[in-house]
Amino acid sequence: MKEFFKVTDLKKVLEYASDFTSVETEDVPLIEATGRVLAQDIHADVDLPDFMRSTMDGYAVRASSTFGASEANPAYLSIIGSVIMGESPPFSIETGQAAAISTGGMLPDGADSVIMIEHTEAVDDISIEVYRSVAPGQNILEKGEDITKNAVLVSGGKRLRAQETGLLAAFGQNRVRVYKKPVIGIISTGDEIVPIDKTPGPGQIRDVNMYTLSGLVKNAGADPVSFGIIPDDFDDLLKKCVLALEKTDMVLISGGSSVGTRDFTIQVLAELPDAQILVHGISISPGKPTILAKSSHHAIWGFPGQVVSAMVVFEVVVKPFIEQISGLSVKHKKTIKLHALLSRNISSSQGRADYIRVRLNEKNGVLWAEPILGKSGLINTIVKADGLIEIGLNTEGLDKGAEVEVIPI
Amino acid sequence: MKEFFKVTDLKKVLEYASDFTSVETEDVPLIEATGRVLAQDIHADVDLPDFMRSTMDGYAVRASSTFGASEANPAYLSIIGSVIMGESPPFSIETGQAAAISTGGMLPDGADSVIMIEHTEAVDDISIEVYRSVAPGQNILEKGEDITKNAVLVSGGKRLRAQETGLLAAFGQNRVRVYKKPVIGIISTGDEIVPIDKTPGPGQIRDVNMYTLSGLVKNAGADPVSFGIIPDDFDDLLKKCVLALEKTDMVLISGGSSVGTRDFTIQVLAELPDAQILVHGISISPGKPTILAKSSHHAIWGFPGQVVSAMVVFEVVVKPFIEQISGLSVKHKKTIKLHALLSRNISSSQGRADYIRVRLNEKNGVLWAEPILGKSGLINTIVKADGLIEIGLNTEGLDKGAEVEVIPI
Repeated sequence: MKEFFKVTDLKKVLEYASDFTSVETEDVPLIEATGRVLAQDIHADVDLPDFMRSTMDGYAVRASSTFGASEANPAYLSIIGSVIMGESPPFSIETGQAAAISTGGMLPDGADSVIMIEHTEAVDDISIEVYRSVAPGQNILEKGEDITKNAVLVSGGKRLRAQETGLLAAFGQNRVRVYKKPVIGIISTGDEIVPIDKTPGPGQIRDVNMYTLSGLVKNAGADPVSFGIIPDDFDDLLKKCVLALEKTDMVLISGGSSVGTRDFTIQVLAELPDAQILVHGISISPGKPTILAKSSHHAIWGFPGQVVSAMVVFEVVVKPFIEQISGLSVKHKKTIKLHALLSRNISSSQGRADYIRVRLNEKNGVLWAEPILGKSGLINTIVKADGLIEIGLNTEGLDKGAEVEVIPI
Repeated sequence: MKEFFKVTDLKKVLEYASDFTSVETEDVPLIEATGRVLAQDIHADVDLPDFMRSTMDGYAVRASSTFGASEANPAYLSIIGSVIMGESPPFSIETGQAAAISTGGMLPDGADSVIMIEHTEAVDDISIEVYRSVAPGQNILEKGEDITKNAVLVSGGKRLRAQETGLLAAFGQNRVRVYKKPVIGIISTGDEIVPIDKTPGPGQIRDVNMYTLSGLVKNAGADPVSFGIIPDDFDDLLKKCVLALEKTDMVLISGGSSVGTRDFTIQVLAELPDAQILVHGISISPGKPTILAKSSHHAIWGFPGQVVSAMVVFEVVVKPFIEQISGLSVKHKKTIKLHALLSRNISSSQGRADYIRVRLNEKNGVLWAEPILGKSGLINTIVKADGLIEIGLNTEGLDKGAEVEVIPI
C-alpha cells in the first residue's frame, strides 16, 4: 500500500494561521467603511450626547413641578417658550414653568425632565394641564449618557457593522483607517480543465472551482483575482505561482484533481522562494489532499480538485487564514453557532473530521439538519445544502436527534 | 389626549410589499454574479458529467475482473494503458484488463468501475495485483449522475451563492441575467442635523442615521445614495423627494426626530405624484412613528429619528420590501432562525411587538440571549447588541429561560 499523505490534524493546521501577518492599512471614507476591518482604536473626543436631549415630544419641566399630578388633580404649568431644534434655548425653566420641546431638542437650563405631550392638555396658548408626574431624568438623555468622552468607540480589529459606522459618524470620523481587503489569487490547474466559455471535449470539464472559490473569497470580505488555467506543466505552474505571489496576499491553487497535478503542485511549492511546506494532507473528509505552503510570508494552498471538497476546505480551513490576514482580531470574532437536531443516523470514520452537507428544515419551531446523500463529487449536493455539520475526529457517528452545530454555506 | 398615529399591525404592513414590483434586469458576467438575484430559470443543456468520470486515483476495470479478490487471494490484471486527463481514451477494457486513471479522468469503453490505487500493487510495468473487489459503478460518476439534461439548474428569484455560481460555470453560463441592484435614496431631514464633517453647535447632532441606513442598505444587497440633509422646510423636502423618486427605486426619509419634521414628512408625502399614504404608524416598539407611502409605484418611507428605532424599522419592516423589489422569490427566501434562551425576565406591553436588543453568549453549548438595558435612544445599545428578539403583540412579557428567536443585526 502506498502512503499518500502525512495528514495533519485540523486544529494543528489552524494554528499556522498566526504565522501570517495582516495586510496593510488604508484610509477610506466612512460611508464606504461598513464591512471593513477597523485598523485602530477610535476614542470619543466629546460626550454623546453633548447636551441634555429630549427623547420625547412634550414639555421640558422641573420634575418637582409635576409631583402629585393626576387626571383628577392636574398640575398647571405656564409655557414660557418653545425649544427650536438645533438651537440652544435662550431661556431657563423655573418651578411651575414648561417649554414645548421635540424629540432630540436641547433642554433649557433649569429643566431636568420632559413630560410627554400625551400626558398634557393645552389650556390656552400660555398654560397646560399635566396629568402625570415625571421623575428627574425621565424622557431625557443626560450629557454623556450614551458615550462618555475618551471611551473606546470601536476597537481596531473589529469588522464594522452598520451600527458601528453610525457611531463613528456621530463622532465625525469622516475617514477611517481600515485594513485593505486581502487580494486572493486563484490559479486553476489541470490538463482536463477548459475555460467556461469553451465547450468541453471528451474527458474535459469547465473550470467550476475558480467560480466557486471566487464567490467564497468575496463572501469572506476579500478580492479574488484569477490567474487563468495552467496545464499540468511544472515550469508554467511555477512561473504563475511566482507571479501570483507577487501580485496578491494569498494564493489558492484550484486543483485539477489528477495525481499528476497534485505531484506538480507539491514540487512547485517546494521550489518557491523561501518555501516551507507546512501541511500536506489534513485529517478531514472531504478535503484530505490539501496542501499549505508558506512563501515569502504568504500562504499558498493546493486545493483538492472536487468542487465539494474545495468548498469544505475553504469554509473550514482557508477562511480563518483569510480572516487572520484581514486584520480581524480574535476577540472580535464572535461566531454564533446555529444548532439543529440531526434527522437521521450517520456513521463516520474515527481519526478524521467528517463534514456532512445538510439541508435545514424548521418543523414546529425545531430546526432539523437533514443530511444530503450523494457522492462527494456531486456539485448538486452543495447546491441543495444550507450548511455543513462536523462529525468530530473521535466520533464514530451520530444518532438521529443528536444536537449538531451547523456551519451555514 | 391627542391621537398621534393610527397604527397598523406589522403583519398588515408587510402585506403591502407585494404592491411593489421588482426592478429591471441586466446581464452580468458570471464571475460577478455571486450575491445577485437570478432573473430567469436556467436549464441544463447537457448531462453533468457528460462522460463517465473517475472519482478516485486508481485503475479503470470491469468490476467482474475483481470479484473475489482479497489480500490472500489477489486478482491479477494486465495494464493496457493510461488515461490521459482531458482526453478520450483510445482503447477499451476487457475482462482481466486495467488502465491507470486519475480522479476526474474519463473511463475507457468497457470499464464500469475504478479500483483505488491503495488497493493494488504493481507487479511490473504491465500488470497489477488487486486486493479488493469493486462493484460496478464504484468510484465513478455516471454520465448525468450529478445533473441530468434539461433539469432546472437554478430558478429565477434565487440569490446566487458561490455554489450556484459554480454550477452555472459547469454549464458555460458565462453571462447571466440578474435583477439590477435596487438603488435606495436616503434623505436626511431635521433642522438639528449637521453633516458629519461639521462640529455640531449647541442642540445640533451629526447625521448618524444616513450612515447607519447606508450600511444596512448595502447589507441588504442594494445600493444606497444620499440626497443630503434637508432642513424642516416643506418646499425643499418636496423637491428633494420628487428628485429622489425619479433617480432611485425606493426612498428612505431619515427623520429628524422632531414633531415638525414628522408633520412636514406626512404633508410632503401626500403631495407627491400619484401619492397614497399606506401606513402612518406601526404597532411595533421602537419604531411606531413610521410612515409608508406609495408614489408612482415606488415606496417612500418616513423613518423615526432615533437611530435604534431606525435600525429596528429597517430590519423588521423595510428589508422585506427591498427583498421584494430585488426580485427575490418567496420560495427561495429560506430564513433560518437562530434560537436562544432568554437570560432574564422581560416585560412588554400588549398590543404591540417589542424588539429587544440582545447580546448572545454561548455557555456549555447553550446559546443565551441577554437583553441590553438602556433607553432606546442610546446608540451604544445597538453597538453592544448581536441581535434583536421579538416579544409578540399578544405577550405581556417573557420569563427567564424562555426560547426566543434572534434576528442577527
